Amino acid sequence: MSKLSHISQFLKQSGTDAAFISTPDNVFYISGFRSNPHERLLGVFVFSDETAMMVLPKMEVPDAKAAGWKYDIIGHEDTDNAWNLVQEYIANKQNSLGTLAIEKTHVTVDRYEEIQRILPSATISGIDDTLNSLRLKKDNSELAILRKAAEFADYAIEVGVSEIAEGKTELEILQAVEAALKAKGITHMSFDTMVLSGPKTASPHGKPGSRKIQKGDFILFDLGVVYEGYCSDITRTVAYGEPSDEQRKIYETVLQAEQAAVQLVKPGVTAKNLDLTARDIISKAGYGEFFTHRLGHGLGISVHEFPSITSTNEMELIEGMVFTIEPGIYVPDVAGVRIEDDVVVTKDGVEILTKYPKELVIIPAD
Amino acid sequence: MSKLSHISQFLKQSGTDAAFISTPDNVFYISGFRSNPHERLLGVFVFSDETAMMVLPKMEVPDAKAAGWKYDIIGHEDTDNAWNLVQEYIANKQNSLGTLAIEKTHVTVDRYEEIQRILPSATISGIDDTLNSLRLKKDNSELAILRKAAEFADYAIEVGVSEIAEGKTELEILQAVEAALKAKGITHMSFDTMVLSGPKTASPHGKPGSRKIQKGDFILFDLGVVYEGYCSDITRTVAYGEPSDEQRKIYETVLQAEQAAVQLVKPGVTAKNLDLTARDIISKAGYGEFFTHRLGHGLGISVHEFPSITSTNEMELIEGMVFTIEPGIYVPDVAGVRIEDDVVVTKDGVEILTKYPKELVIIPAD
Repeated sequence: MSKLSHISQFLKQSGTDAAFISTPDNVFYISGFRSNPHERLLGVFVFSDETAMMVLPKMEVPDAKAAGWKYDIIGHEDTDNAWNLVQEYIANKQNSLGTLAIEKTHVTVDRYEEIQRILPSATISGIDDTLNSLRLKKDNSELAILRKAAEFADYAIEVGVSEIAEGKTELEILQAVEAALKAKGITHMSFDTMVLSGPKTASPHGKPGSRKIQKGDFILFDLGVVYEGYCSDITRTVAYGEPSDEQRKIYETVLQAEQAAVQLVKPGVTAKNLDLTARDIISKAGYGEFFTHRLGHGLGISVHEFPSITSTNEMELIEGMVFTIEPGIYVPDVAGVRIEDDVVVTKDGVEILTKYPKELVIIPAD
Repeated sequence: MSKLSHISQFLKQSGTDAAFISTPDNVFYISGFRSNPHERLLGVFVFSDETAMMVLPKMEVPDAKAAGWKYDIIGHEDTDNAWNLVQEYIANKQNSLGTLAIEKTHVTVDRYEEIQRILPSATISGIDDTLNSLRLKKDNSELAILRKAAEFADYAIEVGVSEIAEGKTELEILQAVEAALKAKGITHMSFDTMVLSGPKTASPHGKPGSRKIQKGDFILFDLGVVYEGYCSDITRTVAYGEPSDEQRKIYETVLQAEQAAVQLVKPGVTAKNLDLTARDIISKAGYGEFFTHRLGHGLGISVHEFPSITSTNEMELIEGMVFTIEPGIYVPDVAGVRIEDDVVVTKDGVEILTKYPKELVIIPAD
């Protein structure tokens, strides 16, 4: 059954007349058409009778058709009010539209007001949870793509580690990594590549800059690629020159926490169980206050997607879920370490997509 | 007066108690702090008494402070409901908050529902127009940055044109351009760089790929850089080998349209006047149906910002506005040409920021 049919099915079962799918990632999920419309209106109306209509900037209509869109299309120009075109379409299609489900986490208040204007008698509900559940379980073709995306992430770490040398800047290493990926046909990273060194590793969201690699540094890589519309996301931390005892202790604690969480993955285990297992290990080593973020997040078409792997999420893992496991310890002015893998929940355990070694790599310094 | 004071001023004048500013670009505009919070909550509450509070992921608090944020801060963890923390803060700060202005073009329905939940008695209005007006007129320091951003865009075109050679792919040329920019310290492009060749130039939103340059191709570059938080955006189209008569005619028509619109720019002229001037020239040459988009868009912190330069926008230009002028003609299976400059409205005319030549450049083919 196609992804679009799944949504029609849900609409029929829930007694909803139509859904408006507007997140570019969800539009891609159901149509194969990838677009960044900026402020222009893009979305797919799915109806309970298994018909659909895409509304998009007129100049992208040929691209949507080339991507395989076979249903109705409304192409709007910059001088059109696209919502009025949608109103006409719906009026022609059916006498009334009593209920409409929207992505409440994506539709903005101004668009919500437009929807209320053109469909004044419609009851509006949310379809976010349904889309999250649909995207949660990856099918075999999605998993094959995600495996390949993770392979490129491993390769990127390999290149990054091989580029480390005294006096090189974070940005120089970053550029070498991205150039190597481009040479392999990767045109997009799944987020801004992070190469941080020395004390900067202690900022979980730090920005690479012109700091030069020095003996005794940790170097932290956090990166991922977009491959056929799907994301990978890996973090590795390596040492340049002999690490101090404290650096070693931080590294080994994170590694132990990461491995413990990964080994726990199988259907039926809860998300919070994973997070708390890693968090306990870190707390017992005395670094609890320095693990300042959740354990991980869903991964797929979006680099951060449903669900969030937190200490309070009681959701049970199911086969086919893909998410990251990425504990970290960030001690200000000392060092930060994060180790991150992408994992798949299998029938009775876990498949680890990212394969770059996790034992502490020490690059000899002169 | 600081940008934050401007907003407080507006709140006082309009009898609004507070504003919630949540677009990452607007948060940067008023605070100098740039963040991409993904699905996490980021925003600044500005109050009419010139106080303010930023709510953001806890792990980014040090970065916000380092960027110069001196007001209150709420750092939330992944297990917090950030809105509840906001509710407590507001309850402690003042007895009641009767009116709140939000960015209706950014706040999503689910967040709107959260705001209504934590502030059940507040009247909610939009502050989008006010922020648009504030950002519309660039001050001298912003203009200095935009000039520099445009210089880098010119340089990128120079590199791109010098890389054109028979058999090279669009992606190879693109990579050479971005590598040259990175070597100059540019870490972000303002959007995905476009290098299109041959018939692909006829798709205004086409994607660069492995097509190889051939004799007789037009090659279209559309790109821009982010420099100190501000964007540039340039398009140039060049020929590889002698163009056909039709290619020449298309090029000369676009050039004439572009120049006519640029020459018209000065305070008091309407946006639609610019668009229609260019559109008329293209229509009279017989290509009206192939100019499928607006003439241009505002430019600044966002690569597409207020206002839209369309055939129906009656807004009058004012000194300090910065926008693009980018007519194009896209004849399917023949060729596409777009020429785009970034311009500033000066006291009595126009300053053109992008300076790469616009006469048709013909690269000799063997």
